[in-house]
Amino acid sequence: MIVIGEKINVITNTIRAAMRERDKGPIQEMAVLQADAGADYLDVNIGPARKDGHEVMPWMVEVIQEAVDLPLSLDTVNADAIEAGLKVHKGKAIINSTDASRERMERLIPLAVEYNSFVIGLTYLAQPKDANDRCAYAADLLGAAMEFGLPLEDLILDPIFQSVCGMQEHAMEILKSVKMLTELNDPPMKIVCGLSNVSNGAPEKVRSVLNRVYMIMAIREGLSHAIMDPTDKDLMDTLKTHKVFQNEILYCHSYLDN
Amino acid sequence: MIVIGEKINVITNTIRAAMRERDKGPIQEMAVLQADAGADYLDVNIGPARKDGHEVMPWMVEVIQEAVDLPLSLDTVNADAIEAGLKVHKGKAIINSTDASRERMERLIPLAVEYNSFVIGLTYLAQPKDANDRCAYAADLLGAAMEFGLPLEDLILDPIFQSVCGMQEHAMEILKSVKMLTELNDPPMKIVCGLSNVSNGAPEKVRSVLNRVYMIMAIREGLSHAIMDPTDKDLMDTLKTHKVFQNEILYCHSYLDN
Repeated sequence: MIVIGEKINVITNTIRAAMRERDKGPIQEMAVLQADAGADYLDVNIGPARKDGHEVMPWMVEVIQEAVDLPLSLDTVNADAIEAGLKVHKGKAIINSTDASRERMERLIPLAVEYNSFVIGLTYLAQPKDANDRCAYAADLLGAAMEFGLPLEDLILDPIFQSVCGMQEHAMEILKSVKMLTELNDPPMKIVCGLSNVSNGAPEKVRSVLNRVYMIMAIREGLSHAIMDPTDKDLMDTLKTHKVFQNEILYCHSYLDN
Repeated sequence: MIVIGEKINVITNTIRAAMRERDKGPIQEMAVLQADAGADYLDVNIGPARKDGHEVMPWMVEVIQEAVDLPLSLDTVNADAIEAGLKVHKGKAIINSTDASRERMERLIPLAVEYNSFVIGLTYLAQPKDANDRCAYAADLLGAAMEFGLPLEDLILDPIFQSVCGMQEHAMEILKSVKMLTELNDPPMKIVCGLSNVSNGAPEKVRSVLNRVYMIMAIREGLSHAIMDPTDKDLMDTLKTHKVFQNEILYCHSYLDN
């Protein structure tokens, strides 16, 4: 499974301040921290950034890629900001994200084609009620990908994970949708989640175990990518252990040492 | 999933000494510890006990059931010891175990019928090479159960989990066999494992995470029972968290507090 580090996010005070003051330090530190912890991509969530997103995103991309040799997931609803970021991005980026609305798909999927990027497609327009709803939205996303010439292996579907706090009864239905979404193509569709969503609102002391257990359950159904916290060592150890059992990494007594 | 506590075992020095000296204390303490930690059954492993098993096992059963209100899994190759234990056991015991040999099945399955017990059937005669081998042995066990009049829901199949140390390449095949074995009946066959086997030979610091991750993977394939360490709080928290996602227990912020 591909790990997309979640920690460069405008909701974090230090990151928000650094973005506003164009202060590289805290952003590059957070990038290095996540790269060292094993992230494959870094998510760059600049928020809606309606006014200056087209300036902030390329600055962020350059600052982060100056510090780490990783591709990025450009995360904002501001499509102009994403386009400006793609122009300076090195490697194959992830556009995060389009939903299943005609307007967003028309704008973002051609961008993914033009810049040879992945694009995350939220199986969302109104809140999906069940796995079938998610598949219906996914069908719209796959249709648009084919219409605009995006290879289906560059579309990453997001079934939208929900918190166990208040939404407990949806947990198994969401896992079912992961499996159903993978089956929309062969080779299987790529599936991403915002893993921390699962434990949103839960006390700090139980968040990690909730994320860990649900991650394994979701990988078993076909989850291929997760936007998650790579600095949670228990979470990363769980992922490595799963890879041992899957024969993706070789077991040795020190497999959890860095 | 049903938790069978593994810690009353002749290989533990204090338990072995207590068995030899007929000293109730350490045995009852270990029973209470596991019951308080959430075990549903307690395994009572007295070893081969060729000479005095028929005396040791009933003594153990009475001593343990004097301390805790739990059914037991009577674990020895000595069938006379198991029979003597069943005679004094309160509730529905588990006979642990028969393999797929005619001699063992003929002796132990009728005992399970006579004493209305579960019986664990090892999918083993020679070491099984793959999931198909395990299913072939299971077919012999199911055949014997039907022959001797044991309801299939009282037969618990054991695919024999192997250690990731040296047997890493078998891990996924064993999981596949869990699923295949469940499918030998409808309702699904019950499946048990010796969970700690998975991390046998691994250093102490990685054993728990190996057991935790593989347990979730195996439950997803249909594992219904595990002989495991209920005093490993991380392992039990993992199991409870899985039950939250499966809607078997209700989420609340304090669901991991005792």
